[in-house]
Amino acid sequence: MSKPLILVTNDDGITAPGLRALVKFMKEIGDVVVVAPDSPQSGMGHAITIDNTLYSKKMNLDSEDGALAEYSCSGTPADCVKLALQELLDRKPDICVSGINHGSNSSINVIYSGTMSAAIEAGIEGVPAIGFSLCDYSWKADFEPAGKAIKKIVSEALIQGIPEGVVLNVNIPKLEEAAIKGVRICRQARANWKEKFDKRTSPMGRDYYWLTGEFELLDKGEDTDEWALANNYISIVPTQFDLTAHHVIQHINNWNLSS
Amino acid sequence: MSKPLILVTNDDGITAPGLRALVKFMKEIGDVVVVAPDSPQSGMGHAITIDNTLYSKKMNLDSEDGALAEYSCSGTPADCVKLALQELLDRKPDICVSGINHGSNSSINVIYSGTMSAAIEAGIEGVPAIGFSLCDYSWKADFEPAGKAIKKIVSEALIQGIPEGVVLNVNIPKLEEAAIKGVRICRQARANWKEKFDKRTSPMGRDYYWLTGEFELLDKGEDTDEWALANNYISIVPTQFDLTAHHVIQHINNWNLSS
Repeated sequence: MSKPLILVTNDDGITAPGLRALVKFMKEIGDVVVVAPDSPQSGMGHAITIDNTLYSKKMNLDSEDGALAEYSCSGTPADCVKLALQELLDRKPDICVSGINHGSNSSINVIYSGTMSAAIEAGIEGVPAIGFSLCDYSWKADFEPAGKAIKKIVSEALIQGIPEGVVLNVNIPKLEEAAIKGVRICRQARANWKEKFDKRTSPMGRDYYWLTGEFELLDKGEDTDEWALANNYISIVPTQFDLTAHHVIQHINNWNLSS
Repeated sequence: MSKPLILVTNDDGITAPGLRALVKFMKEIGDVVVVAPDSPQSGMGHAITIDNTLYSKKMNLDSEDGALAEYSCSGTPADCVKLALQELLDRKPDICVSGINHGSNSSINVIYSGTMSAAIEAGIEGVPAIGFSLCDYSWKADFEPAGKAIKKIVSEALIQGIPEGVVLNVNIPKLEEAAIKGVRICRQARANWKEKFDKRTSPMGRDYYWLTGEFELLDKGEDTDEWALANNYISIVPTQFDLTAHHVIQHINNWNLSS
């Protein structure tokens, strides 16, 4: 029986330690092809490159964790997945995994996440997909404790299949393996970022801003990803790209919109 | 009674005819402040600027359709909304309108849309929000036939309120006003883009790609935005930013994920 073909991508760029760790874990499960951005693409949301050219380069990252083939791409995470599926891969992958992100993509962060946009793009194109994020923003984060759970989740997804129209958003707490209590299937917690713009003046006398902010949790539910992570569980949120708020269609149908 | 304060933004840039038309329409309803990108940001999805500086410039676009105040911003549509709400506006706007986009944002396009990401960002921050798109990609598109419906929808949203956690995605067919049959509240049609990469070689001998593609409708439902638009209706899809696929949580709870 042939091994599953696994497409690995991310948003931190092809040299990110989180991606190298994911490649290593996935090599234990199947054949791995990497198509990832040539530079960091955090916060890119579901951006695609439509007014500019895309470059792709076959890499020879001759490390022990090396994949069958690796390509860097000048575009966004969503571009990488499109290019992989249409141009670079010989056949449709059995699964696409994105990450491991250096930092959380829980709750509202999913909206801004390049990691998740890559997974969502794969899902839109009919490829089962999972985004993985470790709640540790450090470039030197330790991804080893997450390995066992990540392999288990991917293996189970390959056996069970992921329902159509759904991709998985997996967040892993920053803990030793023994301290992780297990896995919870969750809903996305309600939250937002309370922005604070740091206003400065350039050496040329021009004002500019840095976008900063504080995460604000607005949800006390014990069925959310934030609750799971705060209580030492891995969170899995099944995430969809049908954004329709079906429950309010009837409500808005009562508006007076006839002219 | 004070007039409603209306924040106008878009993704085609502050000089786009679609935005100028929207400003003109909104001036009939309330006080208008514009905060919009200084350059086109189509396809930016929900990107935000976290590794770079943001510039903002107060503009004096002394035209007849001029707003109370106008600011251009070097960032993405989501950045514009964040900057407007936190830094540039004196008070919270009563509504945020984004557009009018030059081209459709129906069905799966909502995922890639800068127009809708601005509206969604406002929604996340608790401001009622609507994205408007005209199904005409031309820079010289005629926005006048859409004016009456847009004013009706915004006025009704100000009266009724938009349910929390929901923003409206409004698409308008390219038709004379008399040919528009009315408004339909819809779900997002299932669709994707069948990519085709146009591979070329630069004068320096380096291969590059242009991302192109064809829209592929995968949905025969008569309750979708695509159906409405094809049948000469304006489509309104209530759109949410809780991406949880609630209906599959139970299903995935049956996976074997214990180690």
